[in-house]
Amino acid sequence: MKVKQILTVGLVQQSCSQSRAANLTASIAGIREAAARGARLVLLQELHTGPYFCQTEDTDCFDLAEPIPGPSTGQLGAVARELDVVLVASLFERRAAGLYHNTAVVLESDGHIAGIYRKMHIPDDPGYYEKFYFTPGDTGFMSITTSVGKLGVLVCWDQWFPEAARLMALAGAEILLYPTAIGWDPNDDAAEQQRQRDAWITIQRAHAIANGIPVLVCNRVGFEPDPSGHTAGALFWGGSFVAGPQGEILASAPADAATVLTAQVDLNRSETVRRLWPYLRDRRIDAYQGLLKRYLD
Amino acid sequence: MKVKQILTVGLVQQSCSQSRAANLTASIAGIREAAARGARLVLLQELHTGPYFCQTEDTDCFDLAEPIPGPSTGQLGAVARELDVVLVASLFERRAAGLYHNTAVVLESDGHIAGIYRKMHIPDDPGYYEKFYFTPGDTGFMSITTSVGKLGVLVCWDQWFPEAARLMALAGAEILLYPTAIGWDPNDDAAEQQRQRDAWITIQRAHAIANGIPVLVCNRVGFEPDPSGHTAGALFWGGSFVAGPQGEILASAPADAATVLTAQVDLNRSETVRRLWPYLRDRRIDAYQGLLKRYLD
Repeated sequence: MKVKQILTVGLVQQSCSQSRAANLTASIAGIREAAARGARLVLLQELHTGPYFCQTEDTDCFDLAEPIPGPSTGQLGAVARELDVVLVASLFERRAAGLYHNTAVVLESDGHIAGIYRKMHIPDDPGYYEKFYFTPGDTGFMSITTSVGKLGVLVCWDQWFPEAARLMALAGAEILLYPTAIGWDPNDDAAEQQRQRDAWITIQRAHAIANGIPVLVCNRVGFEPDPSGHTAGALFWGGSFVAGPQGEILASAPADAATVLTAQVDLNRSETVRRLWPYLRDRRIDAYQGLLKRYLD
Repeated sequence: MKVKQILTVGLVQQSCSQSRAANLTASIAGIREAAARGARLVLLQELHTGPYFCQTEDTDCFDLAEPIPGPSTGQLGAVARELDVVLVASLFERRAAGLYHNTAVVLESDGHIAGIYRKMHIPDDPGYYEKFYFTPGDTGFMSITTSVGKLGVLVCWDQWFPEAARLMALAGAEILLYPTAIGWDPNDDAAEQQRQRDAWITIQRAHAIANGIPVLVCNRVGFEPDPSGHTAGALFWGGSFVAGPQGEILASAPADAATVLTAQVDLNRSETVRRLWPYLRDRRIDAYQGLLKRYLD
C-alpha cells in the first residue's frame, strides 16, 4: 500500500483573444509543454476557447456554444491521445435550443470522454452575468474515474462552496480541480483586490485541508474590456496554483502572465494525512440535515 | 440600515497550570484587560480552567468536570455582569454520572447563561483522547442570541468541518467563535509543524469567507507534558486570531506567549460582503443530500 504514486500535473494559464482558433492553439501549446515536462494530467482554465463573454447579456453569444462531444472535444481528444495525457477542458455546452451549460469535460489519455461535469453553482454579479447563459448543472457532484485517479472536477464559482468539495471527496475524488475565470474590477482599490484574491486562494486551500486531497486551480489572466462599456472590464488575476492535501502550496503562477505551471503531487500523501486528521470519521451526519435548507429561520 | 456597528472583541490566550484557581484568576485578569480596552465580547480558550487533561485516559480526570450552571459559570457570570461584557467560556461539563461534555457557555453581560453549545465533533488521536472523556454534543448547531449579536459558538475540532460553520451561519450566526486547544507534537519536524498551523489558520479563515462573517479563534499556549510519559507532550501553538468576513486577518497573537488580543470588528461589513458574493443565494440545496451520508460508494 506504500508504493510511491507521484503524479506530475500541468495547468495552462492563458489570456484569450477573440479568435477561437488562436486560443485553442495556445491551449494546445501549453498542454504540449506540460506533457514535455512530464505532466500526465493537464487542467485548462474556464472557457479557454474564448474571451469571458459573460460581461454582457447578449443572445448572439449563444453562437459560441458547441455540443459535447463536438469540435473542441474532438480536437482536444486527439491531443490527449497523441500526448498520452488526461485533459480537463472547460466548454460552453449547447445541449438543446435554449439549454446551455458551463461544462467541464474530462478526456482520457486515449482521447475518449471519461466524463463531464456541468457547473452546479452559477454566479451572477455585475460583469459576471452567468445566470443568463448557463443553466445550473444537473450532473450532481460525481467524481470521474480516469487512468490517473478519480477526479473531482468543479468549476469556478463552485470554489466558494465547501459543500461541493466535500461531496466530491465523499464520491471518492482523489484530486479536486477548478477551471476558473475570476478577476478584479479595476475600480476596486488595492486593499479590496488583495482581500478578494487572498480569499480565493484561502478557501480553495481549505477544500484541500477539509478533505485531505490536493487541489488544482487554473485561472485566466489578462485584461478583457466590457463590450457594453458599462463597467471597467475584468482584470483576470491568474495565480493558478497547486496545493497538497494539507493546503500547502506546491506551485503557483504569477498574476499577470500566461504560464504553464507544473508540479508533482504525491497521491499517497492523502492516506497519511487522513489517518492523522480523520475528518471523514467524525462528520456528524446525524446533525447535518440543516445543510439541505436555504436558511434556518 | 447603514449605522456603523463596530464591536471590540477580546481573546484571552493563556497557559495553564495544575491550579484551577490560578487558571481562572488568569482568565479573569485577561477579561478585565480586554474590557478595559473596550471589549464587549470576550472569548476564552478551550478548557481554560486547567491543563489539557486529554493527553491520557484516566478516570480520575472526570473529577475535573463540573455542572452547568456551576462554580465556573457562577464566578464568570459575576465577572461578565461587573464588566458588562458577553463572555464565552469553555468547560468540562458533568451532565450525569458517566455523561460528560466539552461545553461552551455563553454568559450574557448581566451574568445569566444565554446558551450553551456542546462540542459536536470529538477528536481522538495520540495525545488528544477526547472520545474517552466527551460524549458528542446533542445541542446541534444553534446560534446563541446575545446583546452583541447572534453567536455561532463551536469548539476546536469543529473548526475542521465546514459543515459546522455553514450550519451556524444558516442559523443566523453573525460571528463564529472557536475556543481551541491545539498544539504540535514536539517530535514532528518544523515543516510538518508549519503545515499544520497554516492549515489551521487557513481553514478557519475559509469559514469566514464561505459564510461572510467574522471568525474569532482563541487557542491555548505553552508546553504541557504527557503525564503518562508515552508521548513527547503537547506544545500548544497559540496564534489566536480575529478574521473579518473576507477572511482577512484583523489581529493575531504570538505562538509562544500569553496574550490578551483585542480587535475591532465591523458587523456591518458582512452585509456588504454578502451582497457582492452571495453564496447563500446560490447553494444547491437540491443536490446536497450526499452530505448526510458517511461516504458515497
